[in-house]
This record gives sequence, structure tokens and C-alpha cells, in this order.
Amino acid sequence: MTEVVKITSDISTYVHDFGVVARDAARILATAPTRQKNEALQAMAKGTADGKAQILAANRSDMVAGESSGLSDALLDRLELTPARIAAMAEGLCQVAALPDPVGEVSGLTQRPSGIEVGRMRVPLGVIGIIYESRPNVTADAGGLCLKSGNAAILRGGSEAIHSNLAIAGILQQGLSHAGLPEGCIQVFDNTDRSVVGELLKLSEYVDVIVPRGGRSLIERVSRESMIPVIKHLDGNCHVYIDGAADIDKAIAIAFNAKCRRYGVCGAMETLLLAEGIAETVLERLGSMYSEAGVEIRACERTRELLPQAIPAREADWSTEFLAPILAVRTVKGVDEAIAHIERYGSSHTDAVVTEDLETSRRFLREVDSSSVMVNASTQFADGFEYGLGAEIGISTDKLHVRGPVGLEGLTTRKFIVFGTGSVRP
Amino acid sequence: MTEVVKITSDISTYVHDFGVVARDAARILATAPTRQKNEALQAMAKGTADGKAQILAANRSDMVAGESSGLSDALLDRLELTPARIAAMAEGLCQVAALPDPVGEVSGLTQRPSGIEVGRMRVPLGVIGIIYESRPNVTADAGGLCLKSGNAAILRGGSEAIHSNLAIAGILQQGLSHAGLPEGCIQVFDNTDRSVVGELLKLSEYVDVIVPRGGRSLIERVSRESMIPVIKHLDGNCHVYIDGAADIDKAIAIAFNAKCRRYGVCGAMETLLLAEGIAETVLERLGSMYSEAGVEIRACERTRELLPQAIPAREADWSTEFLAPILAVRTVKGVDEAIAHIERYGSSHTDAVVTEDLETSRRFLREVDSSSVMVNASTQFADGFEYGLGAEIGISTDKLHVRGPVGLEGLTTRKFIVFGTGSVRP
Repeated sequence: MTEVVKITSDISTYVHDFGVVARDAARILATAPTRQKNEALQAMAKGTADGKAQILAANRSDMVAGESSGLSDALLDRLELTPARIAAMAEGLCQVAALPDPVGEVSGLTQRPSGIEVGRMRVPLGVIGIIYESRPNVTADAGGLCLKSGNAAILRGGSEAIHSNLAIAGILQQGLSHAGLPEGCIQVFDNTDRSVVGELLKLSEYVDVIVPRGGRSLIERVSRESMIPVIKHLDGNCHVYIDGAADIDKAIAIAFNAKCRRYGVCGAMETLLLAEGIAETVLERLGSMYSEAGVEIRACERTRELLPQAIPAREADWSTEFLAPILAVRTVKGVDEAIAHIERYGSSHTDAVVTEDLETSRRFLREVDSSSVMVNASTQFADGFEYGLGAEIGISTDKLHVRGPVGLEGLTTRKFIVFGTGSVRP
Repeated sequence: MTEVVKITSDISTYVHDFGVVARDAARILATAPTRQKNEALQAMAKGTADGKAQILAANRSDMVAGESSGLSDALLDRLELTPARIAAMAEGLCQVAALPDPVGEVSGLTQRPSGIEVGRMRVPLGVIGIIYESRPNVTADAGGLCLKSGNAAILRGGSEAIHSNLAIAGILQQGLSHAGLPEGCIQVFDNTDRSVVGELLKLSEYVDVIVPRGGRSLIERVSRESMIPVIKHLDGNCHVYIDGAADIDKAIAIAFNAKCRRYGVCGAMETLLLAEGIAETVLERLGSMYSEAGVEIRACERTRELLPQAIPAREADWSTEFLAPILAVRTVKGVDEAIAHIERYGSSHTDAVVTEDLETSRRFLREVDSSSVMVNASTQFADGFEYGLGAEIGISTDKLHVRGPVGLEGLTTRKFIVFGTGSVRP
């Protein structure tokens, strides 16, 4: 009993020290010139490329440990770093260096009747805690985005990637030093104890926001336990609704791409909704395309009359994020029933309508309450790069602060600035 | 024991039902036309003015109960409604009707290399829970702001104001009905049991954000217990720094106004920082002005050499939000020491510099991490009306989502909208 208490207290001090270091670094980083941050990012990119052998060796240790502890092939694949993946990490850091710096941007400066001028200035959040699972490239990606947006980062990767993450962190910190910035701007925990996460989530005095990246259980644990605001990404149960006024060629191209381009991404369509007037025409062609691609169809009864080979959908299928070659299909009367279905079963991630009718498109855009709502485009476009954010640290399914793909801007906030001329309030 | 469980379960169901009603109302309200919302607000204003006698009678019950239960004079004053206060409530609702509707605003729509167009549309948050103390006018003010921004409101006022709040809520709901909107858009709990608050804070399935308005203990309880994101307003320990390059007349006007215009507001200055070069000149005039106004000065040793009548400041004074005719004064070497002092002791609410030096003003603006940073203006300007927000539901001292005065825009969020032409992602 005594020992447990002692360990907890040690971990608590250990995590607390990371918070103090990060807060001090954040103060300096918040006003660091763009040029200096870019210099650090370039040095980090060069260090990553030059340190390839060192990173690969560290990753080898993780892979060996992972194999002997029986990690699944999928997890081992996510854990593995290759020369190509390391080159992509370095390239990513260069891309972040090339992005515009959001910090210091002043907007909306207007004069008020009192004579004062009021506007807003974009500023960093401060300290960002990132909790992520196996992929070690997140260490460089997240570290680079936090740095560019003027935030200190405290990174907690999966214990199975500890050697890889520490090797990458060491290189990132050298890049910071090279540019004259504190190494505390990017820290990775070198203690893999599970209680580190719990302690981090209590550190509201030092950490301004927590970004969990990983599976549902990780995100739910973080949301439940955190004393710090969380930017979280839950399920992407995405829909495409093909309206009666759809262009059939566009509809088929979008419905196929939304499902089949990649099955495992959060923007993949999981349920296809078909207006009854066009269901037969669409399924005639789309049914065989899905069948050739090996997509299993789980359909409502009305759809099954047109596509008898489909499996009957169960109630749970409408709420499921399959992330696999499985698609739920439902025939609906029209846009009202489609919107009601999405409201009931959707996860407010990304939903699309295919229609040539202006009023239907306007209604769908306004009434579907999802982080991305699309007209005549594939749901697989839901991505920070595709949206022009330059990069993304995640996709938020929250409503406050930021919805959808989160880029540099989502890692900042705005303060009011006021200019007077000796102005006093009457 | 059985009975406690039973009561808890009843309250839980009771609060849950408010959530269901609010969520249903919010769906309708989210896409209600501006005209309809304004019609409701106008009807609510007229109902408030016409229902003056009814509101006063209800308030009389609260006042009688408050007096017999020994409420302090200050609390009774906050609780009391007068014809003038009721007229101000009605006028406030008309003003909100006149504000531009933030919902549906599309911004930043640009074409991406893939051919899709991406922009953002401003949408309501959904359901907002407001927990407030005695002032019954908050019922109308907050209800009106939530309505205009397309959000359903669940209001929990102080138990001592229950009759006043229910009378006002009844009138607001008549206004909603008059405009054809669901009465569930604005609900007030008619159960004053303390556990209602605890149950509301668990209702994350139905409530999108909680806004507590009241004293520190209320806000801390809400922050600690809430499973729902909170927009909170903690202390305003505001500073004015008079730089060595200040215009002395401006400096004196601002320092006097920032302290003495009103003592009890969160934007009131609590600590005055003086550059050593101008401290003597400033204090010569300002010392007697404060003395005539009855402001007690608590000063550092260097300041006391110039102002011997000042009381020696204790360490705790630098961190205190006095909200009273008390002022802490410290002489500092220059802007660096001023910024360091604000960083150490401030509450990141509102801080101002008085200077004619451009670079000093720029450094202060960038480096002071507060929700409002001012140059040559009184900290008492920190207010939604003064900033042109039209109205405010509170002042956020949080960093995420919204900082500083929160107007209609702060009660909304933005979703991504994407237009394609049958676009698929390669």
C-alpha cells in the first residue's frame, strides 16, 4: 500500500515537472518570430532525414519487442518505420515550415462610437498535450504543428513505440536548440507507466488543451478523466444521400468513391441513402460495382427488392462505423427522410447530398448538423490537406472551439485588442 | 437511504426531460428564419412590458421570502425588480432583435486544387445551459441571446428568485408561441432542489455548453462537476501599466477611470504599475485624486517613498480582485518588469499599457496573454456592448472557443461546407 502511494506521488511529480518546463517554453515560443520557428522546423526536418539510421535502429527495438509481445500485424504495421515513412516525416516538417504563421494575425479592427478601436489578435493556446497510439510519425507531425502555432507540446505516445518516439523527440529537440528555442517546446514522456496519462489529464494549471488521437476507448477514457478541455475525434458514421434530382453519373461516381477509395478512413461512407425515385437506376449500375469491389451490402427491405443479393440490415448497422468493405443501404422517400435518418443515426462527422436541385442542396447544407456537409462531392474529401488547412492534427467531432479538420488555426485562439487615445469610459 | 435514491432518481428523470424537450426545440430553432426569431423577441419584449404587474407580484413573493430568510441587503437589491428594471429587460430583448443574425453566415469559400469549393457556415451550438444567481433579469437577457443565436436554453436561476424567474419564463414562452416557435426553446426549472444543478451538469447527451454566471464558488463547482464543456468567467485582476514614455495627462485620466468609474466590475483595475521614471510625476496628482475618492492605496516600498500615506502591500494584495475602493500600486523598472508582474499575478482578464512608444505598445499587446489587452484605454471598456458585440452573455476567461466578452457569435460554431461537381477524391 505504501509503495503504491509512493509510486503515484513520484509519477505525479514527474508529470508535473513536464508541465512546468512546457509552460516556461510556451512563454518564449508564444512571441518567437516566424523566421525562428521555421528555422527550427527546417532543422528538425534535416535532422530527421540525417538521423534515419538512428530512428530505424530505435524502431527496430520497438518492433522486436512488439513481435515478442504478440502485437497484431495491423499494429506492427502502424508501429513500423521505413526509410519512406521517415522521409515523409521530414517532408511533413518542411511543409509545416512553409505554411503561413497564424500567430499575431489581427482581424476586425474597427472604431467604436466611444472612440476606441477594437479588434482581435490570434495567439497560441499555450501548452498542448497529445495522447496517441502506435504510429511514431505522430511525434514529428504533432510536434511540428504545435511549434508552428506557437504552442509547447507534451507528447505521450504508445508504450510499444517508446524507443522510436524518444529517438524522434531527441532529433526534434536538437532542431529547437539549433534555432535558439528551448528544448522544452516539444517533450516526450520517457516513462511508459499507464498512470502518466491520468496525471497529465489533471495538469490543468499547465496544460491548456488535450488532443487524443487513437481508438474509441482511448478517446472515451481521456474525455471522461480529463480536467483539461479536450479536442476529440469520435466516430465517422458518414452518409451519402442520392436525391431524386441527382445526376446519376455523378451519384454513382461519388457513392463508389466515398465507400471504396479507402475503407479505413473516418470520412468513408458507411450508409448510402437512396431516394425511391432513383434507387433502381442507381443500383442497376452501382450494385455490380460494389459487388466487383467485394463490398458487402446490408440493406433495408425496399432496397432488397431491387438488390436481392443484399443481406438484410439490422438496426445496429445504421449506427455502425464499419471501416471495412461493408455498406448499409436504405431507400428513403426523399430529402426529409434522409435528413431525419442522418440526425438519428449519424455521428455528425461528414455527410453528403447528391442533387441538381438548388433548394434541396440548401436545405441539406443548413439542416444537417455535421462538422462537414457536402454537395455533389465524396465524403472522403474530409481532410485538412484537401480543405487547404495545410496539415491537420486531427478531426474534431466536438462543437466548441473547432469542428472538423483541425489545422494550425484550431491550435490558436483570439484575444481582444483595444487602442485608445487616453480613452476613458464615461 | 431508499428515499434518497428515489428522490435522486426522480430529479434525474425531471432534468432529463428538460434535455429531451430542449433538444427537440433546438432542431427546429436551428433553421428558423431570422424574421421568426425576431418576431418572437419582439413579442417577448411586449409581453414583458405588458406583464409588468404580474412580474412585480411574483418578485414581491421572492422579496418577502428573501427578507424573512435573512438575505443580505446586497442580495435583496440584486433580487429586486422595479418598473425601471422590467423596462430595461424589455428594451434588452428589442435590442437583441435588432442585432444581425449570426446563423447561416458563410465565410472563406475558396476553390481548392481538386476542384471542390470549401468554406465554413456559422451554426448554433444546440442547447445551452445557463446557471445563474439572484438577478432575475438574466432569465430574459440570456433567453433572448440564446434564441437569437438559434440555441435552445435551459435556465437554472437562484432558488430565491424562483417566482420571478418562472413569471418571466412564462412570458418568454408566450412570445415563442406567438411566433410559432416551440416553448421548449426557453425552459426554466420549476424545481429548486440543489441536485438539479448536478443532474444538469451530467446531461452531455442533450446539452452542448454550460454558461455559469455568478460568484467564484458557483463557477468553481460547475467547472469541477460538469461533464459538459463550460464557458466560464473567473477573476478579473486587471492591471494598468504606466510606461516611462506615457503621456501623463492620458495616464492619470486612464488610471483614475480604470479604478474609480465603478469599483465592482470585473474590468476594474486592481493593481497600478508605474515605471520608475514617471512614478513621482504621476503620483503627485493621482495620489490626491485617489485620496479624495476614498481609495485606499496598498503600495510597494519604492512607491511608499513617494506616497508615504500608502499602506504597505502584502504579497496577497497583488493577486486580489478587490472589487472595492482599494488599489495595489507597484513601481517597476519598465515594461519587462510590468509584463512579468502581470504574468505572475494577473488573471488574464484585461490589462492595459499607457505609452506613446510604438515598440512598447506592440510588445505589451503581443506578450500579455489576457483576454483583452489595451493601449491607452481604460480597462473598464472590457464589455460586450463597448466592443460592438451588441450584447454579452458573459466574459470568458477560458482560452478555447471564445475569450473575453461573449456575444451572439460566441454562442455559435462553424461547420465546413463543401461544394463539388460530382467530385471524387483520387
